[in-house]
Amino acid sequence: MEDKRELFEPQALRDFIYGVFMYFDVPEEDALLATDVLAYSDEHGIDSHGIARLKTYFGLLQAGRINPRPRLQLIREKHAVVTVDGDNGLGLVIGPKCMEIAIEKAREYGTGSVAVSHTNHFGAAGYYPLMAVKHDFIGMSMTNTSKGVAAFNGKEKMLGTNPVAMAFPTLKEPVVLMDFASSTVAYGKVEIAKRAGKKVPIGWCLDENGQATEDPERMINGGALLPLGSSRDGSGHKGYCLAGMVDILSAVLSGANWGPFAIPFAINTASSDKQVGKGIGHFFSVWDVDGFREVQEFKEEMDEWVRTLRAAVPLQGAQEVLIPGDPEWRAYEVRMKSGIPLQMEVVMDLKAISQTTGIPMP
Amino acid sequence: MEDKRELFEPQALRDFIYGVFMYFDVPEEDALLATDVLAYSDEHGIDSHGIARLKTYFGLLQAGRINPRPRLQLIREKHAVVTVDGDNGLGLVIGPKCMEIAIEKAREYGTGSVAVSHTNHFGAAGYYPLMAVKHDFIGMSMTNTSKGVAAFNGKEKMLGTNPVAMAFPTLKEPVVLMDFASSTVAYGKVEIAKRAGKKVPIGWCLDENGQATEDPERMINGGALLPLGSSRDGSGHKGYCLAGMVDILSAVLSGANWGPFAIPFAINTASSDKQVGKGIGHFFSVWDVDGFREVQEFKEEMDEWVRTLRAAVPLQGAQEVLIPGDPEWRAYEVRMKSGIPLQMEVVMDLKAISQTTGIPMP
Repeated sequence: MEDKRELFEPQALRDFIYGVFMYFDVPEEDALLATDVLAYSDEHGIDSHGIARLKTYFGLLQAGRINPRPRLQLIREKHAVVTVDGDNGLGLVIGPKCMEIAIEKAREYGTGSVAVSHTNHFGAAGYYPLMAVKHDFIGMSMTNTSKGVAAFNGKEKMLGTNPVAMAFPTLKEPVVLMDFASSTVAYGKVEIAKRAGKKVPIGWCLDENGQATEDPERMINGGALLPLGSSRDGSGHKGYCLAGMVDILSAVLSGANWGPFAIPFAINTASSDKQVGKGIGHFFSVWDVDGFREVQEFKEEMDEWVRTLRAAVPLQGAQEVLIPGDPEWRAYEVRMKSGIPLQMEVVMDLKAISQTTGIPMP
Repeated sequence: MEDKRELFEPQALRDFIYGVFMYFDVPEEDALLATDVLAYSDEHGIDSHGIARLKTYFGLLQAGRINPRPRLQLIREKHAVVTVDGDNGLGLVIGPKCMEIAIEKAREYGTGSVAVSHTNHFGAAGYYPLMAVKHDFIGMSMTNTSKGVAAFNGKEKMLGTNPVAMAFPTLKEPVVLMDFASSTVAYGKVEIAKRAGKKVPIGWCLDENGQATEDPERMINGGALLPLGSSRDGSGHKGYCLAGMVDILSAVLSGANWGPFAIPFAINTASSDKQVGKGIGHFFSVWDVDGFREVQEFKEEMDEWVRTLRAAVPLQGAQEVLIPGDPEWRAYEVRMKSGIPLQMEVVMDLKAISQTTGIPMP
C-alpha cells in the first residue's frame, strides 16, 4: 500500500480537534487542554498519538464510555503525594490537570507525585514532563495501557505497552526528552506493517502459539508484542520489569485496573469481564531542580551533557548520534513550516467525523 | 574453561568482608553496613556484585582512592529533597545512609528524593529499594557507572551500564523487585564469555570499529556494550534513553561526573583527564504507599498482581513466567542452606587478601 499523505495547517487541525470536543459538551477550558495534548503529537512527529486517534476518542465519547465533564477528585493526600480519581474523564484532560498538581507539590516540597485512577488514554507521555520543564523542574510521566505485551517467557498478552517519559531543562541546547514504550515497538508499528503488506523483524511479535513471527497479522490475531529486549539473549526480562514498574505505579498504587484488566482504548474491544479497579491509571512525578542544585549551573551542565553525547563518533552508516528529544524538535521545525502530513486513512476518518458533526474539514 | 566453584558459609563470608573493611579503619558501623550490602549480592545470586568485587574495593582502599572515614555532607536541601556529598566514601556506606535519608523524607512528606555526588560503586542497586519496602514504602535507586556503553548509533563508550532498581511491598507473596542495567547485558557477562572462550550473541557488543561482534575480546579491547534493545529493529534508542535518565538524575543533578567522565571502578584504569564533577553519583526516591492508598489494600492488590502474572501461560520450552525478584528469592533459599558458590578465581583473590591482611580465610 502506498503511503500517500495530505498536508494540513497545524492550527486548522487544532480547530477541528477543539470543535469535536466542544461537540461533546466538553467544557471550553478542558477542550483546549485536550486539543493541546493531541496536537502536541502531530506537531512533534508522533503520528500514532495525535489526530489519528481522534476517531477513537470520538467513538468512545459518542458511546458514552468517557465522561466529557469529569469532576476530578483528590481521594487521598499526604503532603507531597496525592491520589486522584479522574471520574472517567478524557486522559487528555485528567493528565494535564494531575501533572499540574504534581508541579504545585514540587514547588512546595521540592518533589511531588500524583497517582491517578479512573482515567483514560492520555496521548503522548512526553507532553507531561515538558509541562514541568517550563518551570525548570524535572518531570516524569507514566501510564498503563490495555494488554498487548507478553510477560517475559509468557505467550499471553499480560501488560500494556506502558510508556515512561522524562524531560530535563537545558540552557541553550534543546530540552532533553525521553519518551518510550516498554515494549520493543508500539502496536501502531505492527499495524502499519500489516497495512503495507510488510514483514516485521523477529523480536517484535509472538504469534498465537507463542512463536516468534515476522507476520504482523499473526500478532494482531491472537499473538502478542514482546517486551523491550525481546528475547533471552536480548534481555527481554528488562522490558518486562520496566512494564511492571509502570503498571504498578500507575494502576496498583492508584486503584486502577492493572495488567490484563486495563480498560482497552478501542471502541470495538470489550473490557475484561473482571475489573480490579477503576479505568486505567497514570503516575506523575516532578522534582524541583533548585532543591538539588543551582538551576543555572544544572542547565549549563545539561548543555554540556548534550554537546558531549552529540559529539560521539557515529556508527558507520549512521549520520549522527541523536540526543533524546531531537526527533521531536526536528519534526516540529519542519511541520510548523510545511504543515502536518496525515495518512489518507486518517483524512477519511476526519471526513466522516466532519459529516456527522457538521464541523468543517480542516 | 571449567566453571569450578567452592562453597562457603554465608556468615563466614560476611565475617571476612567485615574484617577487610575494619582492616582499612572503616568505622565499625560503616563496615557492618558495607558488609551487608556486599553480602546481599552473594546471598541472592548476584555473583557479579558481591564478594567477587572485594578485590577491587580492597585495591582502591589500599591505594587511598576511597576515603574509609567519609563525612557525609548535606549540601542542599528543600523539604523532601536533598543533595549529599559523599566525601569520596564507599558507595556501600554512602548508599544505605542516603537511602535512609530518602526514607525519612518519605515518612515526613509522603515522598523524598536524594541525589548523591562524590561517591563510589554502591554494589547491587536492588539492595536499596528493599530498605524502603521494610517500611511499606516503594523504593527506587539508580547509579551511574564508568563508561562502557555506546550511545544509540554511536560507536564509542559514552555511558555506564547505569542500573535502575525498584521494589514494591506485598502481603503474602514475595516482594516484587526489579533490578537491571540499562545495557543489554552487564560487562561481567562479556568477561565470563571471554574466560570461557565462548562467543556472545549479536546484540551485546560492538567491536573497536563499531561493528556488531560475537567476539568478547573485541568488545573488551576498545569496543563497547550496546544499550538495552541493541539495534534499530530492537529499539536500542530506548536503552539509550534509560541510561541517559539514570546518568542525569544520578550525576548531573547531584554534581558528580556524568557520561564518559564517570570515575572508573577499577584499580588499573585511569580516570578521564577531564572531570566535570565529584566522584560518581546515585539517586534514590521513596514513596510512602500510605500516602496514596490503604497499605493493606495495596499489598493485597500486589499479591493479586503477582498471582495473575505468575499464572500466565509460559512459552513452549520455558518452564514458567517469573515475577521480578523471583531469581533473587530462589537463590537466597538455596544459598542460605547449601552455601554460597564462589568461582576459583574469586577464592584465589580472597586468599591473596587473607595473606596480605592476616584475616583468616572464610
